[in-house]
Amino acid sequence: MISGLELISQSTCFNGTVAFYSHHSDSCNGKMRFAVFIPPQALTQPVPILYFLSGLTCTEENFTVKAGAQRYAAEHGLMLVAPDTSPRDAAIPEEEESWDLGTGAGFYVDATQAPWSSHYRMYSYVVEELPEIITANFLVNPEKQGIFGHSMGGHGALICALRNPQKYLSVSAFAPIAAPISCPWGRKAFESYLGTDIETWRPYDASELVLSANYGRPILIDQGTDDNFLKQQQLLPDVFERACQQVGQPLTLRYQEGYDHSYYFISTFMGDHIRHHAHALCE
Amino acid sequence: MISGLELISQSTCFNGTVAFYSHHSDSCNGKMRFAVFIPPQALTQPVPILYFLSGLTCTEENFTVKAGAQRYAAEHGLMLVAPDTSPRDAAIPEEEESWDLGTGAGFYVDATQAPWSSHYRMYSYVVEELPEIITANFLVNPEKQGIFGHSMGGHGALICALRNPQKYLSVSAFAPIAAPISCPWGRKAFESYLGTDIETWRPYDASELVLSANYGRPILIDQGTDDNFLKQQQLLPDVFERACQQVGQPLTLRYQEGYDHSYYFISTFMGDHIRHHAHALCE
Repeated sequence: MISGLELISQSTCFNGTVAFYSHHSDSCNGKMRFAVFIPPQALTQPVPILYFLSGLTCTEENFTVKAGAQRYAAEHGLMLVAPDTSPRDAAIPEEEESWDLGTGAGFYVDATQAPWSSHYRMYSYVVEELPEIITANFLVNPEKQGIFGHSMGGHGALICALRNPQKYLSVSAFAPIAAPISCPWGRKAFESYLGTDIETWRPYDASELVLSANYGRPILIDQGTDDNFLKQQQLLPDVFERACQQVGQPLTLRYQEGYDHSYYFISTFMGDHIRHHAHALCE
Repeated sequence: MISGLELISQSTCFNGTVAFYSHHSDSCNGKMRFAVFIPPQALTQPVPILYFLSGLTCTEENFTVKAGAQRYAAEHGLMLVAPDTSPRDAAIPEEEESWDLGTGAGFYVDATQAPWSSHYRMYSYVVEELPEIITANFLVNPEKQGIFGHSMGGHGALICALRNPQKYLSVSAFAPIAAPISCPWGRKAFESYLGTDIETWRPYDASELVLSANYGRPILIDQGTDDNFLKQQQLLPDVFERACQQVGQPLTLRYQEGYDHSYYFISTFMGDHIRHHAHALCE
């Protein structure tokens, strides 16, 4: 059943299976890795798919090991898919120079600028190629997809859903980079990957996209109040909130008192997020 | 309130606090680290304490990040305490030579043999010194202590409880090294730390101790059937089971089909274990 996928490891977990795979990616022009949780329900019936996009410096492993998501996914019968956050070993000299660009920092865009454009096409990988691979290799219902993520991956989840409302029936985010055009991380990445014309950045900015997306379905965002990146104006959930209000996009933005940017924060509210997705995907 | 403890980091988690500390240890003749989860209930009342001892190569971080225990501890109002698995940087030349001896492999014994005896006194650290530190610095009920662990730490939990039934009202283990005298890991560690006289090993072997411990209260052990270390005869739960049967010690030994030795296994059954402890500690 698994074609073109190389199994790296697998473990039984909550009566399902956690597995890590690598494969050749056309989008990213090289080897990519992802992790899955196959819930026990997938033994007998096609299950909905929930994608998780991780933040800067992460791999497919952080979410899989730290988020405590498998318990809830097993309860609701959801398959979890967590891709890596960038191509690796693309032989681009600048790739390892900084932690917020290149390796571990793909930003879920299709780069148009050299040297990145040869490999850094994470948007196409996440939205097109990876779902095709999942559908071809696992017992899933490709009509039932949701997406969520953390920080850079929260940005990724929002833009994927807002640009493809028909593909993603549910979306949520933990401490997302909600207005990348307006924060230092986003501006650095977009200028490098997309060039200096800001018009090319707008299709990758959730706070811009939501103005014309007509996504309609409710969006859930949790944001810790003790998150240093919130204080440093990297996340800007208030910008996204105002944009949602402007167009009537339903948004539940919860400021969680005392929580920081870590997986201790994510794991605390994972149950709520998976319930949010299950409500849309499993009815 | 915190005296002699250096706070390394803390994060809010499940409405409580995950924190990492370091401190000088008299038992281990140097700096030691541990992690805690302080449940929200500890803001207003003394809470029971549940110690978790980790396995070979681990630090205090593995359990804290991977086990998903905080959710359950918050539900039941238990404080979690996870010490590191050995002294570090003890300036013992052999310390870093192998992964199953020295750093990350303290085996929860008080070493009597040079060069280890100057620092490797994890039994005294876990049973005496660490509980004193916890009691002095946190709002806990020192009369209500339980202990559990994984692999080498499952061994540690069993011997601590069996030797001190009055101190530990509950005990459980994930894939413990249940008969260390009879397995390669245990024999290597015990010979190095304790010398060649097997009589000195028996007080650190759960399957020997249980014969005369009169622990009485129920012991819970989970063991995955796809655990490679089970197949390699490092764990020997059957030896411990026979010893328990011989003396009428209540034991629930559950073989979990398809599970391996990883934290994916541990996290799956964490809820059951914390419930086991809460039943004894929170009534």
